[in-house]
Amino acid sequence: MFINVKFAPSMVGSDHDLKQSSVVVIDTLRATSTIIAALMAGAREVIAAATIEEAVAISHRLGTERTLLGGERGGVRIKGFHLGNSPGEYTPEVVHGKTIILTTSNGSGALLKARQAAQTLCGALLNASAVARHLAAGGARDVLLLCSGSGGNVSLEDSLAAGAILAELLAVQDSGSVTISDGARIALWLFNECRNDLPAALRASEHGRALMELGFTDDLDYCARLDIPDAPVPAFAGSSIKVQQSGPAGPTVARFV
Amino acid sequence: MFINVKFAPSMVGSDHDLKQSSVVVIDTLRATSTIIAALMAGAREVIAAATIEEAVAISHRLGTERTLLGGERGGVRIKGFHLGNSPGEYTPEVVHGKTIILTTSNGSGALLKARQAAQTLCGALLNASAVARHLAAGGARDVLLLCSGSGGNVSLEDSLAAGAILAELLAVQDSGSVTISDGARIALWLFNECRNDLPAALRASEHGRALMELGFTDDLDYCARLDIPDAPVPAFAGSSIKVQQSGPAGPTVARFV
Repeated sequence: MFINVKFAPSMVGSDHDLKQSSVVVIDTLRATSTIIAALMAGAREVIAAATIEEAVAISHRLGTERTLLGGERGGVRIKGFHLGNSPGEYTPEVVHGKTIILTTSNGSGALLKARQAAQTLCGALLNASAVARHLAAGGARDVLLLCSGSGGNVSLEDSLAAGAILAELLAVQDSGSVTISDGARIALWLFNECRNDLPAALRASEHGRALMELGFTDDLDYCARLDIPDAPVPAFAGSSIKVQQSGPAGPTVARFV
Repeated sequence: MFINVKFAPSMVGSDHDLKQSSVVVIDTLRATSTIIAALMAGAREVIAAATIEEAVAISHRLGTERTLLGGERGGVRIKGFHLGNSPGEYTPEVVHGKTIILTTSNGSGALLKARQAAQTLCGALLNASAVARHLAAGGARDVLLLCSGSGGNVSLEDSLAAGAILAELLAVQDSGSVTISDGARIALWLFNECRNDLPAALRASEHGRALMELGFTDDLDYCARLDIPDAPVPAFAGSSIKVQQSGPAGPTVARFV
């Protein structure tokens, strides 16, 4: 197994790079954490949309009674949307059985880049070990951990989640069978540096500080949890995703449009 | 002062981002190390060219008697070129008074990205502290340490040089006046992790291993030296660069075409 980490979607040169790869899209704060939360809470599916207009159009096409619009711009809920990008909003009472149409500032770009991959998963600290075990069990040979970053820059919280996935992959794979890139080595060092206090690391991160200023401190604590029980592994394939490892809500589907 | 680190040229979205910035282009293995070596050895100037054809055309335009062609593809010297990309080749006997036209696989791309910046310097481990002191003395407010990376990926050796420059910047600046990005924080951690044995770190890096396989182990030892005496700070401005801090060879000029 070869494991690479890219710290921003712009580092993926072309879709061609990904066709033989298993890609894990990471947006710890907060898109992939929110997708995990929504599916665990029994959402029927999550559809990621690149723009607000596209999200609204999809909602009208599928029917507004069965869909909920979620997402943010500048960190805050989009005007007229039912939900923001706080995973704690995505409770069973609100989202069970619903199709969530989600558009966010950074995660959408990374998902767009990754959808041509042989396999595309959503990762975060919440499901890091579950993602790693899924990749190992599936015999993935070429793994790319693709950080969404923030505004084109490296983000600490995505790099940490990449390191967490990598640490578990190295634990479950025969070490002689794994080769890691320089990017992966850096993410692993970083995770080992911070693993004993992930909430503090997220609070120190640039995006974490911005979210705290907006009043989203609870989101940081939510997203800093490593390996919550029964964490699902949301997986994109073409235009749809099924959760590969059933959580308590049972099999669910997320689609990419 | 705000300090950011980008781990690959692709992370620079547009030239517009750079117009207010002081950019340090880093290609530890080996382009910026070679530029430093060439200028220290008394080369009149270094001109960076994007392609082999462009390098040859520039040489013919300036006159083959006053120019030397240098560079690599796949790590090895380009056929018909006088010099490869090993800094140890750039001795006073060979390069004194000459214009070096240099084309390399990764450094050229980073230099192309950076040439619109308010100030563009060449950095490596060899001149890390000199670059930092130059930035501090010049009152730089927005600093981008731009790693060339390798084939679009993060490279350990460039990240380490970024961390080395950053460590010195933080030492010479009033700490209250410096803000660093997540990328900068990661580079600094990495440098502190590896600073006690930089040659080992370069030998462990992906590109370092590839160069050793090609027989360039001496280059790794050359480029792993932190802060050699009288290290110059090559600085690009528009189409030409002057060394901002005179080395023993006196003021020299490198141009970008």
